[in-house]
Amino acid sequence: MKALLLVAHGSRRKQSNDEVDTLAKKLKNNCGEQYGIVNSAFLELAEVLIPDGIEQCITEGASSIVILPYFLNSGRHVVEDIPSIINSCAVQHPNINISLAPHLGASDLMMDLLISSAVNA
Amino acid sequence: MKALLLVAHGSRRKQSNDEVDTLAKKLKNNCGEQYGIVNSAFLELAEVLIPDGIEQCITEGASSIVILPYFLNSGRHVVEDIPSIINSCAVQHPNINISLAPHLGASDLMMDLLISSAVNA
Repeated sequence: MKALLLVAHGSRRKQSNDEVDTLAKKLKNNCGEQYGIVNSAFLELAEVLIPDGIEQCITEGASSIVILPYFLNSGRHVVEDIPSIINSCAVQHPNINISLAPHLGASDLMMDLLISSAVNA
Repeated sequence: MKALLLVAHGSRRKQSNDEVDTLAKKLKNNCGEQYGIVNSAFLELAEVLIPDGIEQCITEGASSIVILPYFLNSGRHVVEDIPSIINSCAVQHPNINISLAPHLGASDLMMDLLISSAVNA
């Protein structure tokens, strides 16, 4: 079974983290054919952290896990921190295919979204 | 003249900040009819900071400035820090209409973008 793990930065503000959990639930409703599991995890400041999120996917029966970084820019978190954590987890689970997708901001659709927000501001 | 100021968090990684500046330039090409000025600024870690970005818009002739937070979640930066900075700047410029648009993650299009990224991951 294929799992998607949506990874956000994490905030001290609970409502911000709840938004991410809600997005993951909505994603599950829209990508259920491709992903039998869709969960969320956080880099820092909030539970569950990425390694625990990966463990949770495996516990739920994932044989492969796609990590989707919910980040806008290719900052240090996206380029260094998240890959480093994923690599450590992958070493611990050699039988699970753990892959890292491009961060959200790399999407070709981002410019359309930005234009829409600017025009409607 | 109306200005749009795209405000991102800012990163220690120059390339990440350059992405934001590039987005602002592309936005200018797409929203030029609505905004005579489109600039970028950062909350922290990178130049120009928000107050300087606002000053820059005014120097370029802005009579009104829309601040568009390039953030995904309604964390502390979006809910507290950016509004606080904008309010301070507004007090200093009572003749300039400075308004704060919803953060990017609040867009209805975000779910479509997320689904697209997940399906293509």
